[in-house]
Amino acid sequence: MTILVKIAYDGTNYHGFQIQDDVITVFGVFQEALLKILGHKTDIKGCSRTDSGVHAACYYLSFETEKQLNIPRLPLALNANLPLDIRVLEAKQVADGFHARYDCKGKQYTYNIRNSHIDDPFTNKYYWRVPSELDTDKMDRAAQYFVGTHDFRSFMAAKSKITDCVRTVYSAKVKRKGDMVTFTVSADGYLYNMVRIMVGTLVNVGKGIWQPEYVAEIIAAENRDIAGPTAPPQGLFLTDVFYDFE
Amino acid sequence: MTILVKIAYDGTNYHGFQIQDDVITVFGVFQEALLKILGHKTDIKGCSRTDSGVHAACYYLSFETEKQLNIPRLPLALNANLPLDIRVLEAKQVADGFHARYDCKGKQYTYNIRNSHIDDPFTNKYYWRVPSELDTDKMDRAAQYFVGTHDFRSFMAAKSKITDCVRTVYSAKVKRKGDMVTFTVSADGYLYNMVRIMVGTLVNVGKGIWQPEYVAEIIAAENRDIAGPTAPPQGLFLTDVFYDFE
Repeated sequence: MTILVKIAYDGTNYHGFQIQDDVITVFGVFQEALLKILGHKTDIKGCSRTDSGVHAACYYLSFETEKQLNIPRLPLALNANLPLDIRVLEAKQVADGFHARYDCKGKQYTYNIRNSHIDDPFTNKYYWRVPSELDTDKMDRAAQYFVGTHDFRSFMAAKSKITDCVRTVYSAKVKRKGDMVTFTVSADGYLYNMVRIMVGTLVNVGKGIWQPEYVAEIIAAENRDIAGPTAPPQGLFLTDVFYDFE
Repeated sequence: MTILVKIAYDGTNYHGFQIQDDVITVFGVFQEALLKILGHKTDIKGCSRTDSGVHAACYYLSFETEKQLNIPRLPLALNANLPLDIRVLEAKQVADGFHARYDCKGKQYTYNIRNSHIDDPFTNKYYWRVPSELDTDKMDRAAQYFVGTHDFRSFMAAKSKITDCVRTVYSAKVKRKGDMVTFTVSADGYLYNMVRIMVGTLVNVGKGIWQPEYVAEIIAAENRDIAGPTAPPQGLFLTDVFYDFE
């Protein structure tokens, strides 16, 4: 049978999700815990590659097993074998052959900015602190240029080898609540560092360096050098993953 | 002149506030940072002794100095010399002789309980996780027995040497928001471990072990053995300190 598991993790101490040699990844740690429960190796499919230091409030993994599992108890069993910064939230049986990445219809990311001169002692691993005053109305207007189907290569890390850079952004929103400014974006897919470059660009707009309309020019330029800097990883959270069954 | 400084700190890595030999305390770390800014030693008064592992979202310190300080810039200057888990939020000049503890009229504490089978990977240093279902309406009814002027020795750690155990609780409230249950209490003063023993007692009520009315009996018994267990420190936050000038 095929099992789909929903997890959340603090990415601070991990070199991203994907397994790599010689470094600790969320995938590697999860694989070890699952092996203890199943008693056999299985090919685990993650819904997304996330970068080093990025967090997930919602991340899905799928795998196959022939073992008879008590599925409602699977989260507790896995959590007993995982560190506190990775937690299994849910587990369910899905259609045979379901694949956490290939069957994913889109994802939502949220990026946290703390717009303050002072850090917060409790949450400082979960935001990018920007001391300059940010005009969030302008940032939100700028973000609307992302919505729709565009070639987003201006928002892709230069080292990426991807050539098809057309993605569809369903929604993009900048909100302020006190000192916290959040950028929330939903899309069918993302290029390497896409959300973080979007955020670096929006912050330039928020500081008044660029007008919101300039984002349309950045997209049209199809040139990474024109867009803003790549925002640091620790503000980024994967916050939702879309599947047809939900 | 006398300066009053408002700070916030994550108590996880500290042996409480008060200075002690051979262990790292918030006081000790703050004293070192202040010495760098002032260039001279000064007697620092903290508003409260907090236990090892307890946090403060709002904590006040007062001290005297003859140095000409740029007071609005003092938080930035101190923060540059403090670790990220202690942040100075505000600084202001107050009346000569003002004392952060003696002039304090009362304090508010908030205790966080996560009522869930699953920990949260992002905030697990800031709550007590209680998996059993908690009846928060009953807990709130029980908390109302704390309000008023009572001898609270049933809610004082047995090792405490204090003999005058009469304190006035201004308000006490239990609220639920999803899996998070918070107990917020304001009083003119607190006995050693008082809030944490109140929480251990309220959790027994929430689990259905005791009825809310039993709290009146616990108070009347003036006996620590009758009350509930001492809740762990990491859920406790000092959240407000009352002075007459505010």
